[in-house]
Amino acid sequence: MPTQRHSSSIGLMGFGAFGQLMARHLQPHLPLVVFDPAHAPEADGSGKGLAPGSIAQVAACDIVILAVPVDRLPGAIASLRPHLRTGAIVLDVGSVKIEPARLLLAELPDDVEIIGTHPLFGPQSARNGIAGLKIALCPIRGNGFRRIAAFLRHVLKLDVILTTPDAHDRDMAMVQGLTHLVAKILVRMEPMPRRMTTKSFELLMQATEMVRHDAPGVFLAIERANPHARAVRERFFSYAEELTETLERGHRISPISAINTPIVSDSATGECLRID
Amino acid sequence: MPTQRHSSSIGLMGFGAFGQLMARHLQPHLPLVVFDPAHAPEADGSGKGLAPGSIAQVAACDIVILAVPVDRLPGAIASLRPHLRTGAIVLDVGSVKIEPARLLLAELPDDVEIIGTHPLFGPQSARNGIAGLKIALCPIRGNGFRRIAAFLRHVLKLDVILTTPDAHDRDMAMVQGLTHLVAKILVRMEPMPRRMTTKSFELLMQATEMVRHDAPGVFLAIERANPHARAVRERFFSYAEELTETLERGHRISPISAINTPIVSDSATGECLRID
Repeated sequence: MPTQRHSSSIGLMGFGAFGQLMARHLQPHLPLVVFDPAHAPEADGSGKGLAPGSIAQVAACDIVILAVPVDRLPGAIASLRPHLRTGAIVLDVGSVKIEPARLLLAELPDDVEIIGTHPLFGPQSARNGIAGLKIALCPIRGNGFRRIAAFLRHVLKLDVILTTPDAHDRDMAMVQGLTHLVAKILVRMEPMPRRMTTKSFELLMQATEMVRHDAPGVFLAIERANPHARAVRERFFSYAEELTETLERGHRISPISAINTPIVSDSATGECLRID
Repeated sequence: MPTQRHSSSIGLMGFGAFGQLMARHLQPHLPLVVFDPAHAPEADGSGKGLAPGSIAQVAACDIVILAVPVDRLPGAIASLRPHLRTGAIVLDVGSVKIEPARLLLAELPDDVEIIGTHPLFGPQSARNGIAGLKIALCPIRGNGFRRIAAFLRHVLKLDVILTTPDAHDRDMAMVQGLTHLVAKILVRMEPMPRRMTTKSFELLMQATEMVRHDAPGVFLAIERANPHARAVRERFFSYAEELTETLERGHRISPISAINTPIVSDSATGECLRID
């Protein structure tokens, strides 16, 4: 950090898709140690400058980032806990914040600081760089978040949004909840037309494409670990129901009915009319 | 048309949002007469070069375009019919094709040609010009569609898709049906978060914004005048139902449950947890 006389060390727990993205952007600025038994960074070159370390080495860093799936958080915290140093700052990056914040507060030693973060981007949206992309920051304990926010803003050029876990989860229940609900339904309706498309439909397809390859844990976290997700889901479903019922009720009346000629398309069976 | 020794005259019936868009792009190339009692083009300058005409004048043109809402088609056809000339080409531009094609075939004199068209764009998507935008063309009767297609391709630079009314309506049941269903549900869920958003959510919002101001007749035509729309709607709804049920069933099991500390968020009531 700019005001320190030495560089803060960063310990990264988790080297999946997002951990790798973070490492790529942090490593040019600060010494980084990574631990993840499943995805070992290459010490020989492909993880340039990344040192694969032990849990103890990661936990001993000034800043410790938990980049594990939300449901693996308890185990990760338990592993790090014995090795954390006084005054260390522990961050998570998961897509929900209420539950992780509660967990971190409950399970970490009292003398470490805590920040819940959620980068509002992933490998896809970040493929042309991260400048201008958004990150939510929830200070949970301590004031270290100010230096972290300054670094994120001024060095990484991120759009830092200071918020609380509850405000974050309320918004994410809609932002991520609705996007994933819609995407999952549309994927089930495939194959989709590709030739005769409208611009608005193409935007829907792009949104779907962006989230369909998310790790299953992301969708589960969004829907099950966010206490606000259920209400959003219920509203979505009830509006879908109302809409289809309204359209069903009117279905028997064809709007093109002013002529004497009988309407050939059968509104009871939905049978189509071929004109060739 | 390039191969004619005189310019074909175009009679435009309907001067709503789409009629105006078409007039803007056709008028530089061919003489245009417009009829629409509700939206009179200004003869004094704002409708540059547009002559407001009578139904008879519009119907007497070489090419007659019906740009009225799908449910007004019967009345429009009846008005034009007595004045149509032998060999005239009659086009519609509605968002469904099976029903209008049947109606045009049934109600127009035998000696006029018929083309069902559907420009896959509107004033919004066309605000930076129409070059490269798509238009579906369904030849119904006669060969005049070849010259029309050539003009659309080479002069207006549109991406012309030759198809049949059934193939068109099948695709539109998904393309327009799904976009409008999703948009209508999302509009009902407003207000939406604006600050903490992801790229994929922003794409959903853009798609919604593009269609939410469509004339009510557009949505009704898409859903009620397209015999394929109902099946798409039913699938959409049943997948939404399955998805919410699957998520409900798993809801009582919080993924973060490995710790002894009781989970504070109440999965039965959905009550949220405040961490401040």
